[in-house]
Amino acid sequence: MSGVMNFKNCGSVLITGANRGLGLQMVESLASEGFSPGKIIATTRNISLSQKLQELAKKYSNVHIVTLDVVDQESIEKCAEEVGQLVEEEGLNCLINNAGINVEADFHSVTAEKMIENFHTNSVAPLMITKAFLPLLKKAASRGGSGIMRIQKAAVINMTSLLGSVELNWGERANSFKWYPYRTSKSALNMVSRCMAVDLESDGILCMAIHPGWVRTDMGGSEAPLSPEESVASVLSVIGGLTEKDHGSFLNFTGEQLPW
Amino acid sequence: MSGVMNFKNCGSVLITGANRGLGLQMVESLASEGFSPGKIIATTRNISLSQKLQELAKKYSNVHIVTLDVVDQESIEKCAEEVGQLVEEEGLNCLINNAGINVEADFHSVTAEKMIENFHTNSVAPLMITKAFLPLLKKAASRGGSGIMRIQKAAVINMTSLLGSVELNWGERANSFKWYPYRTSKSALNMVSRCMAVDLESDGILCMAIHPGWVRTDMGGSEAPLSPEESVASVLSVIGGLTEKDHGSFLNFTGEQLPW
Ligand SMILES: NC(=O)c1ccc[n+]([C@@H]2O[C@H](COP(=O)([O-])OP(=O)(O)OC[C@H]3O[C@@H](n4cnc5c(N)ncnc54)[C@H](OP(=O)(O)O)[C@@H]3O)[C@@H](O)[C@H]2O)c1
Ligand SMILES: NC(=O)c1ccc[n+]([C@@H]2O[C@H](COP(=O)([O-])OP(=O)(O)OC[C@H]3O[C@@H](n4cnc5c(N)ncnc54)[C@H](OP(=O)(O)O)[C@@H]3O)[C@@H](O)[C@H]2O)c1
Repeated sequence: MSGVMNFKNCGSVLITGANRGLGLQMVESLASEGFSPGKIIATTRNISLSQKLQELAKKYSNVHIVTLDVVDQESIEKCAEEVGQLVEEEGLNCLINNAGINVEADFHSVTAEKMIENFHTNSVAPLMITKAFLPLLKKAASRGGSGIMRIQKAAVINMTSLLGSVELNWGERANSFKWYPYRTSKSALNMVSRCMAVDLESDGILCMAIHPGWVRTDMGGSEAPLSPEESVASVLSVIGGLTEKDHGSFLNFTGEQLPW
Repeated sequence: MSGVMNFKNCGSVLITGANRGLGLQMVESLASEGFSPGKIIATTRNISLSQKLQELAKKYSNVHIVTLDVVDQESIEKCAEEVGQLVEEEGLNCLINNAGINVEADFHSVTAEKMIENFHTNSVAPLMITKAFLPLLKKAASRGGSGIMRIQKAAVINMTSLLGSVELNWGERANSFKWYPYRTSKSALNMVSRCMAVDLESDGILCMAIHPGWVRTDMGGSEAPLSPEESVASVLSVIGGLTEKDHGSFLNFTGEQLPW
């Protein structure tokens, strides 16, 4: 829990794909606890369809909803502009690239279109979003003083998956979830994450990738061992406690390092 | 050199992107030595523009040129059909997915389109090509007897890059070649390669990824330390000597394992 409390000292957190699943749970968990950050910016592709988010925004004054379709460049730029007006001179402290899809396909059913669709949402979108929010992240980083990297200063967190580990895709582990588009998109996201860590370091912006565990969401399905509450409590605790030693890393929701 | 000699016992080898660079050199090296395989199938997107390949085909009777644009599904299927007629009941022993592009872009110049273009050619195409050639690879594998996996039986070799290693993209090494589309596409190819290794194993088809070194081709540029001849001699030697212990691996042109 110690890590989660660090969000209290975090001016603003933006979460993509907050309409349901882990994104929605992150908004709710951050808003409902005593350690809530200054501004929780929940993004969704269609506000009018995001009933639960609207309820949270009504209940908690620090929850702000902004429209964002992560594969639409115009939408990304408009969102960055709106968020800029929201956070003003304080900038954005923590960007959580959470939106994701699983275009299920095995060796026989996979097509080029399915591969590209999953790649666009899961690997390319986090990159294009980070580019668009860079000025806001830099603003926050420069106010955070020099030295130490942490989410209270400026950070980009990418929701990746264990299924994106090339190393672990072998033997027993490789016999389930033979999803080419999803696995490939998460390996690609891991490379994007690592590339961005290299490029954002000089601005003092922390960047890493985290696996939330196997969770009972629409994507994870009902057989998953973790509830969204459990996963998010653990993920937020890890994120809240990140330091420069975690820069460029690939961590499990338990905080352990995972192999690429 | 011992590994290269193994190509003598290889009925057929298909190489994509053989118009120039490493692909062309592989055709020439395989054709010109005493250890030449039965059929060398050189593919190129436009035969009429492939002057050098035509010369090789004229000089060596075991060199066959077939049209293949690796990002065109219709072209892939037509190529598989033509190759099927060429190899007949013997099937295809060794498929080398070599065609590749480098859509150069750093953090600031990268766009979604550049990411997707590079991903399509470098990561998706090898998958779609392997799917299309699977019946021919299976034919060759079933004739090769049970047990041992090697290129003389059936194999899929993916030309990847050291730049696709997420692990190695750190510290000193990460300061050059900050190419998001290319690096990401090769990490994605490594995952595709590993997924295919898992799925092709039961058919006795070996699958792995190899880094050819930094080579003086149009892509590698004039400052690269290796000549195409040197790189290809080494790559063919490694490929020729592969056994099941190399199944699912990521090897350097020197034969050493590389980290994902
Ligand atoms: N659940 C697991 O077991 C698990 C395991 C490992 C990793 N993950 C990762 O964790 C993240 C969240 O997963 P989840 O389980 O919460 O999935 P989920 O229940 O399917 O929810 C996905 C969320 O992403 C949003 N989204 C998808 N495409 C979008 C787009 N183009 N623009 C804006 N939003 C978009 C969805 O919005 P709409 O509601 O509008 O569709 C939804 O809010 C994903 O990146 C996933 O890969 C999940
Ligand atoms: N050179 C290096 O230092 C180096 C290092 C690591 C890995 N690699 C990898 O090794 C492989 C070969 O590289 P190279 O140095 O020989 O590159 P190159 O000199 O640029 O040649 C690339 C080849 O790929 C073909 N190609 C590209 N897109 C194609 C498509 N859609 N359909 C059919 N053919 C296509 C090109 O055909 P056209 O002539 O018709 O354009 C050309 O024959 C690539 O996968 C590359 O990523 C190279």
